[in-house]
Amino acid sequence: MSIIRQTCTPASLFSGDRFSVTYRIYGSEQEARAKAGDICIEQTVEFPADEVPEGIIRDQVFGRIELFERFDRESFKAIISYAIEITAGELTQFLNVVFGNSSIKPGIRVEHLDLQESLLKPFKGPRFGREGIRKLLKIPKRPLLCTAIKPMGLSCRELADLAYQFALGGMDMIKDDHGLTDQCCSPFEERVKRCADAVNRASRKTGRPSLYIANITAPHSEVMKRARLAKNAGAEGLMVAPGIIGFDLMRELADDDSIALPIMTHPALQGSFVTSRNGISHGVIFGQLARLAGADATIFPNFGGRFSFSREECMDIAEETSIPMGQLKPIFPAPGGGMSLDRVPEMLETYGQDLIFLIGGGLFKHGPDLVENCRYFRQMIEKI
Amino acid sequence: MSIIRQTCTPASLFSGDRFSVTYRIYGSEQEARAKAGDICIEQTVEFPADEVPEGIIRDQVFGRIELFERFDRESFKAIISYAIEITAGELTQFLNVVFGNSSIKPGIRVEHLDLQESLLKPFKGPRFGREGIRKLLKIPKRPLLCTAIKPMGLSCRELADLAYQFALGGMDMIKDDHGLTDQCCSPFEERVKRCADAVNRASRKTGRPSLYIANITAPHSEVMKRARLAKNAGAEGLMVAPGIIGFDLMRELADDDSIALPIMTHPALQGSFVTSRNGISHGVIFGQLARLAGADATIFPNFGGRFSFSREECMDIAEETSIPMGQLKPIFPAPGGGMSLDRVPEMLETYGQDLIFLIGGGLFKHGPDLVENCRYFRQMIEKI
Repeated sequence: MSIIRQTCTPASLFSGDRFSVTYRIYGSEQEARAKAGDICIEQTVEFPADEVPEGIIRDQVFGRIELFERFDRESFKAIISYAIEITAGELTQFLNVVFGNSSIKPGIRVEHLDLQESLLKPFKGPRFGREGIRKLLKIPKRPLLCTAIKPMGLSCRELADLAYQFALGGMDMIKDDHGLTDQCCSPFEERVKRCADAVNRASRKTGRPSLYIANITAPHSEVMKRARLAKNAGAEGLMVAPGIIGFDLMRELADDDSIALPIMTHPALQGSFVTSRNGISHGVIFGQLARLAGADATIFPNFGGRFSFSREECMDIAEETSIPMGQLKPIFPAPGGGMSLDRVPEMLETYGQDLIFLIGGGLFKHGPDLVENCRYFRQMIEKI
Repeated sequence: MSIIRQTCTPASLFSGDRFSVTYRIYGSEQEARAKAGDICIEQTVEFPADEVPEGIIRDQVFGRIELFERFDRESFKAIISYAIEITAGELTQFLNVVFGNSSIKPGIRVEHLDLQESLLKPFKGPRFGREGIRKLLKIPKRPLLCTAIKPMGLSCRELADLAYQFALGGMDMIKDDHGLTDQCCSPFEERVKRCADAVNRASRKTGRPSLYIANITAPHSEVMKRARLAKNAGAEGLMVAPGIIGFDLMRELADDDSIALPIMTHPALQGSFVTSRNGISHGVIFGQLARLAGADATIFPNFGGRFSFSREECMDIAEETSIPMGQLKPIFPAPGGGMSLDRVPEMLETYGQDLIFLIGGGLFKHGPDLVENCRYFRQMIEKI
């Protein structure tokens, strides 16, 4: 007899609602089947299955293989469902159930999340989404143009001067580089104030909205403070790297009615999830999880740039930014990294019109006048 | 002429102090050299290097290759230094500088951090460390024994009953399973109160201290609240998964004088950093970063168990838990996962006496009486 006898937890605590996770599992069919079985235990009770008696723990708490089939020559697809109750309505515990311990096992990759209404209920998701951002910018249809203020090492005045030129040249969104936090050369409060002022000044001059997006990736207790400082200084968007601050802190930021600014995510420190056979698919981490945690736009490296994402991987992200997910709004994919003019047609074909072109260094390389370079890109985008 | 002219940032803002990161870079010598050069830019200014004029940004802000040599047949070792000022004294920005964008590039792995006093100054690190935990338990020398309360699905009473038996059997540390958060079958507050009571009751009976360690991995705004609830309920330690809540929130928890309990880390969701050629070494993520962020003990899967770490990888962790890092105390390695009796001699040889044996399912499999099983393991450890 096992030491654990039947639990007195009433079955009525479980609604029967289950969400499911599609895993891609590498190995032979036999290995993959065994791994799928392991996942059902590892991600839930993490306890010897043969020590768990018949009853509610087996019936409700264990993960359940809903489908197992060949994925491709070297891997299998397993759809595993979990009782929504085991996530406790917490994004943190949801992440743990989806991939916590399995992240430590080679050859297991989360490919897709299938989240029904009752699981999604506690999550507000993106406050703005694609439509909300388009409304702020008064741009109903064309792709948006975004650039980054850098390099680190410039003073606040110099960074603000760049921001001004970007806005004057017609960039729709102007974000801090993700490496700008609160360094001595450009302290957060002064930088954000000067940059917001500069963008708003230029925007009045052009008569067209430009959003200044402040990077508030910061120590835990600073994030909300910096969000408020940025808002008060006139920033019209916020950027965070959820790989650094955690997805749940971004969710809290998105949910806060006193802040209520669009949020962009930066992929820093998330790459290791997508660069091997163990991990989380591009679409899930940069699409579904970003949305679930309240991002309005998701930055990721474009294919063919100096990073290594393939066109298919980028299409996967684009798809998951708008796939139906209950009440959660579709968000903007914001591919960046090594973007240049000649890439535009191919990018439109890949992403469609609902995208944010993120262009950085390219704006500096096009010609000697930054404002003119921005205008050039802007006109090009307007012709689309 | 480049658009960026010399910055007016005064050189006096930079102390000249630099910390360094050892990267392992895969590829041919030529590729690896190019990648090392890229890292210097990617992790700092993320800007076309040829657009940055001579002067302070190049001299101070750019990463600098301090050493480049062959690592093994397929990879190279590059030690790259960064000005401490670019981290702004923030753990979040430190992580970003070490590996933010490079995490998105294949074949780059952080192998070791070399952090001098001036960088470490803002970090308090572990409050207890090895010595502090030994003092709480009054065990000067032998390895410690830890187990986990599970499976999820049991009621609070049932979990507390297990906790009682563990403590009666002489387990030094009794932690929540990392999947127990605030589920309907065992809500946080009730569970922690019952478990802490049970462990303290048993501990009075045996006359030997046992620490109950509450899992407070939770949504961002709940973590500190649960830490306080746990402390008030009588818990004597806390567990978090920094892969889920973020390293910096753990740091804040460790630094909070009103909480002041030992902290264990759980590796959930961190596995993808160590399972491929892209990532962070076992020693850095489970050793150095855990310490920097204030953990007193670091849980990771033992070699030869149901996870995939090798003995060498585990030795790397053990080494980094005690390698000199300024004022930061050495912490306990806590290898777990599939531990059994016959593994003990090999584990002692690998880790030495300063370790926490984490045993879970094995305690349930040894015999039909849980208290007796615990006593058996305890006696065995006392003989060491």
